[in-house]
Parts: sequence; structure tokens; C-alpha cells
Amino acid sequence: MKKLINDPLKVADELMEGLVDAYNGECQYVGTRSIVKTNIPDGKVALLVGGGAGHEPIYHGLVGRNLADGAACGDVFAAPPPNIVFEATEAVNKGNGVLYLYGNYAGDVLNFDLGAEISEDEDIEVRTVMISDDVCSAPPAEKEKRRGIAGLVPIVKLVGAASQTLGSLAELEAAAKKAVLHTRSVGVSMSPGSIPATGKPTFDIAEGMIGLGMGIHGEPGVGEIPMTTADELTVKILDLIVEDFDKDEDVDALSEGDEVLVFVNSLGATTMMELLIALRKAKAYLTDRGVKVYDVMVGPLTTCQEMSGISFSLTRMDDELKKYWEMPCQSVCFSKMEGRYGG
Amino acid sequence: MKKLINDPLKVADELMEGLVDAYNGECQYVGTRSIVKTNIPDGKVALLVGGGAGHEPIYHGLVGRNLADGAACGDVFAAPPPNIVFEATEAVNKGNGVLYLYGNYAGDVLNFDLGAEISEDEDIEVRTVMISDDVCSAPPAEKEKRRGIAGLVPIVKLVGAASQTLGSLAELEAAAKKAVLHTRSVGVSMSPGSIPATGKPTFDIAEGMIGLGMGIHGEPGVGEIPMTTADELTVKILDLIVEDFDKDEDVDALSEGDEVLVFVNSLGATTMMELLIALRKAKAYLTDRGVKVYDVMVGPLTTCQEMSGISFSLTRMDDELKKYWEMPCQSVCFSKMEGRYGG
Repeated sequence: MKKLINDPLKVADELMEGLVDAYNGECQYVGTRSIVKTNIPDGKVALLVGGGAGHEPIYHGLVGRNLADGAACGDVFAAPPPNIVFEATEAVNKGNGVLYLYGNYAGDVLNFDLGAEISEDEDIEVRTVMISDDVCSAPPAEKEKRRGIAGLVPIVKLVGAASQTLGSLAELEAAAKKAVLHTRSVGVSMSPGSIPATGKPTFDIAEGMIGLGMGIHGEPGVGEIPMTTADELTVKILDLIVEDFDKDEDVDALSEGDEVLVFVNSLGATTMMELLIALRKAKAYLTDRGVKVYDVMVGPLTTCQEMSGISFSLTRMDDELKKYWEMPCQSVCFSKMEGRYGG
Repeated sequence: MKKLINDPLKVADELMEGLVDAYNGECQYVGTRSIVKTNIPDGKVALLVGGGAGHEPIYHGLVGRNLADGAACGDVFAAPPPNIVFEATEAVNKGNGVLYLYGNYAGDVLNFDLGAEISEDEDIEVRTVMISDDVCSAPPAEKEKRRGIAGLVPIVKLVGAASQTLGSLAELEAAAKKAVLHTRSVGVSMSPGSIPATGKPTFDIAEGMIGLGMGIHGEPGVGEIPMTTADELTVKILDLIVEDFDKDEDVDALSEGDEVLVFVNSLGATTMMELLIALRKAKAYLTDRGVKVYDVMVGPLTTCQEMSGISFSLTRMDDELKKYWEMPCQSVCFSKMEGRYGG
């Protein structure tokens, strides 16, 4: 893989500089490696996201209008260290508390928790909601152990909008927990990405096989299956998500009349052509079950370099979440106008 | 390359069905293979885009709010035949004429021209503006021979907004000509995509080489150069664009105080990480010359399957184009809120 980079050991720093340039004055570079909005109103409950680099446009691309207020960025596939988390926290804090919202990975949990401790020593109130949407990474009864994958994009979109309207950290935490509880994802991969510093593949997978339920770094899922058609794979993926809503005692089963936000994500090299072909089957699958497609997101938003693969995320919508969704937003990762398609 | 498809010969049809699903009621499938907005106001001057499939999210992903009213879609890497162009024209026509705006490829020109003839036989007034932003495909004196590449995304964005505010086909044609004249692009490729129906690579390029000025199907540019760093390549690309503004007698040179919209595009597998690293150098390059970055677009919007490569497009802005840019827009390809970053 020929990568257009300069120093392989500086990609995380350089991409963050470029990200600040992409925001063209809307966001600024803070401290060691954070990005923070330039005009956060006093008294706003702040929303901080973050994680390792290499998955662009997440996580740091989710800072923006009606989205996150800032992001703490680690090195490639590495959590941001506590000092970076603290620098970002201090920069987004406007006196009304900071919600940390990030994917559930051991390194991120450790480092964000340490960052929270430092922040609390400086009298900044912090609460944490972890994103754990990957249903293949633990059973429903242990869902707090699940990884965060592409579902984090609709979740951050919803919670970012909520952070514009809710006046307390406790209310924002509750909205984030609701968005996480009702968002479930399954991903698959056909081929690995490469590690920018070494050019080595991020994992191995046999020719002709698909990793079903694989995580965004290539973590094992529910097993490997032979390469199949877009339609068959879409059904397999959606069956896993629908079964998970069924089996989880904390949520209702997905049933007739429910409305879902559908997100079809590419892990990198999988094309928009393929995403649209799979979406076509997903729409038929959901319609057959009487589940209404409330709105759709589609694109390569949660990636692992040039990894090929696809994930589906479903978010069950209620009136509160619909209100947040329909607010416009803008960032390098995801932008929309007010309202929804077909609304 | 393992592609998630069903029947390799039906990808263009199936992706269009998925695209209609992505628009969730905002657009409908028309005739053989077109997509058209469901609510085009009577009397609106209509904007029709189109071209071959396989480059998603363009061209048919550019239908949407304050964007194109419809798109005529060909098979993979093939122009839409005249009957499809006519079906799309008839569907977008609201009695005030239709502007065709598409990339300058021989097949597209032939087929859109025949579609225009059929339409005019049916008393629909049609005018055509071709997109020809690829400065490496012909010298400035023959710029009407140039190919259309990624610059078509900002051009369609600007002209789509213009089509909401201008009352006559002649005015829209003039706005489109201005957007095309002031938008210039250069692309490079490091590796080919594959043809969905055969799995064969779209072109060959030696290990360790970059095709400088290559088109979005792998058309030759100004030659092959050895693989280099992101910074060096960014300078080479921007030098070509800046020289082109210099040499073209129909436009002013890009000079101090000018404002440009910068678009960094990935041709597919090139990651957002790489785009951001290159953008960082481009911002420094332009700033050094006193050229102001007015706003930035970045992402894989004009692709050729999993081809790796990058292009830069610069659009010199004036007050009219700024007004169009600052309008919000929404589509599967590109969405934004009102205004601009840093504005």
C-alpha cells in the first residue's frame, strides 16, 4: 500500500493539523493533540469525544456545529494519554460540566478515567458514557463489555444536538445513555487495512472468507464465513442486530411500527456502490418486518485505513431522539441540514 | 478484491435502488435508471447531472436539496444512453428549461446531446455546460477539451444553489460557466480500482510510481513520477493548478488577496488521514502566496472504486459564488449547513 504521508511516526500530529485547517477557524488545535471548537458558549454542558487516530473521519472529525465540542486524539490505534484528555477537558469546560463519550476500549477507558481524575482535581465535573454498540463482542447480559464501533457516529450526532438544548450534565448523560442503549451495530471485514508506521496489515483473513462481527481494528467477531453476496450478508448482519434487541431484557424487541435510523458504514476501501447495494436489501428487510426507516446515513465514516468491510447500525428512535436528529449539524465527519429525508 | 455485490452485471441498477432508499422519499427512481427529486417546484429552472456509475457518491449522489434536481445514470463507467437522459429531462422539467451539467467525456457528450435533441423535439428547452476542470488533460488554450474530474462536486454544489435563486435558463447557464471557468483540478493515482463485472484492474501502474495528472478512470496525465511524500506531492499538484490560472488568458492569475474554495478528494482507498495531511501542506502553500482559504471540502466524493489517489480542486470565489456556497445543501454525496467554516 502506497500511503501519501511524510514521516510515518508523525501522521497523527500532521493529520490533526490538517483537520484544524479543514475546520478553517471553526476549531483550534489545543495542547499536545486535541481539537476544540473556538466559540463554546459560557455555561454550555460540554461534550468531549476522542480515541486513537487512524480511523478518520472519526473521532476528531466529529467536533463541529451541534456535534462534539472537542476531541482528545491519541496516536494511531492508541488511546489519548491522560494529559491530552485533561488538556481537551480544560479547553471545552465552560463551568457546567463535561461529558466524555467514547468507544469502549480498555486503553481509552484507562486514559479517559485518569484524565477525569486530573480534571476533577481541577474542579471540573466529569461524567462518562461509553459507546458499546458492537453486538458481536459480548452477549446482551454483558453489554457494558461491548466495543464501540460505527454506531458512535449517530450516537455523537444525537448527543451533540442534545448538548445544545439540555442544561445539565445529568440530563446530557441520560440522553447519551438512551442513544447508546438503542443503537446496535454489526460489522464484517473482507480484508485488512495497514498500519501507517510499518505498512503491515492490521490482521489476516483467508482468501474467500469474511470476518462476521469483526471490530474496527480486526478484532474477532462470531467467526469467519465464506464470501457471499451483498444480499445474503445484509440479512445475516441484520438478523444479528434484530436478535440482539429481542434478547436484551433492557430494551423492547424491534417490532412492527418501530422507527429506526439506519447507518451503513464502510470500513475504508469498501465502495459507496457496495454500501448502496446493501442498503437496498436492508430497506426491504426492515420493511418486510414492518419496521419503518426513519432516516438513513451512508458512507465511510468509521474506518480502519484501507480495510474493506461494512457495518450496519440501527438506532431505534423516539420523539426525543428524533428532535436531536432533526437538528442540522456540520463537521468533517458528518453534516446535514435541518429535518430529515422524506420528512 | 472481494466486492460485496450480487449480480456483477446489475450493480448499476441495484446501487440506484439503494440510492433512492438512502434518500428516503426525497428522490424517486424514474424510467430506466434515473433519480429525480420528488418535489420540484413548477417553473423552477431545472439542473440535471449524470454520467457513468462506479464513481459513487458522484454523480447521482449529487441530487438533493439545493443541489441537482435529477441525474441520468449510465452503467459502470459508461454514459447514460439518450433514452435515460430524456427520461430524466422530462421528469425534472418544470416548464422553464433544463441545464445539463456533466463531465466532459466523449460518450457522455454524445449521449447527452442526443437526449437534448429528443427533449427539444418534445418542446423542452435544454442548454449544456460541460465540466472540464482537469488541467492536465489539455493546455489552457484548448481547455474545452479537458476532462471533468473531482471539481464537479463544488461546481454542482454552486450551480445547484444558483438554480434555487435564478429565474432563467440563460442566467443559470452563465453561473455554471463561471463556476467551471474558476474551478481547476489536478489528480494523481498510486494504484487502480477494479471493474466490478470482471474484477480486473482499471489500469496498470508500476510499483513505486505515481500517475501525475491522472484522470478518474486512470487516463494518462503529465507522466509518472516516483512515489514521494505527501508534502512534495501537494506542492507539485498545486504548482500545476496555480500555473494554469497564470497561463490561461481567460482568467486572472491566482494572486495575493484572492479567495479559494479548496477541495481535497480521495479517489477511493486513499484515507481521510492522508487527505488531511495533504490539506495541511496546501493551506501553508496558499497562505505563503497570500491566497486566502475561503472554505474547505475534504473526502472521498469522486471515486473510481478502490483506486488510490488524491486530487486537489481550487475554485476562485467572488461575491456571487460565495452566496451560492453559503447556502446549505444536502445529498448523499455532500451536505452542509448554512454559512461557511470560520465565517
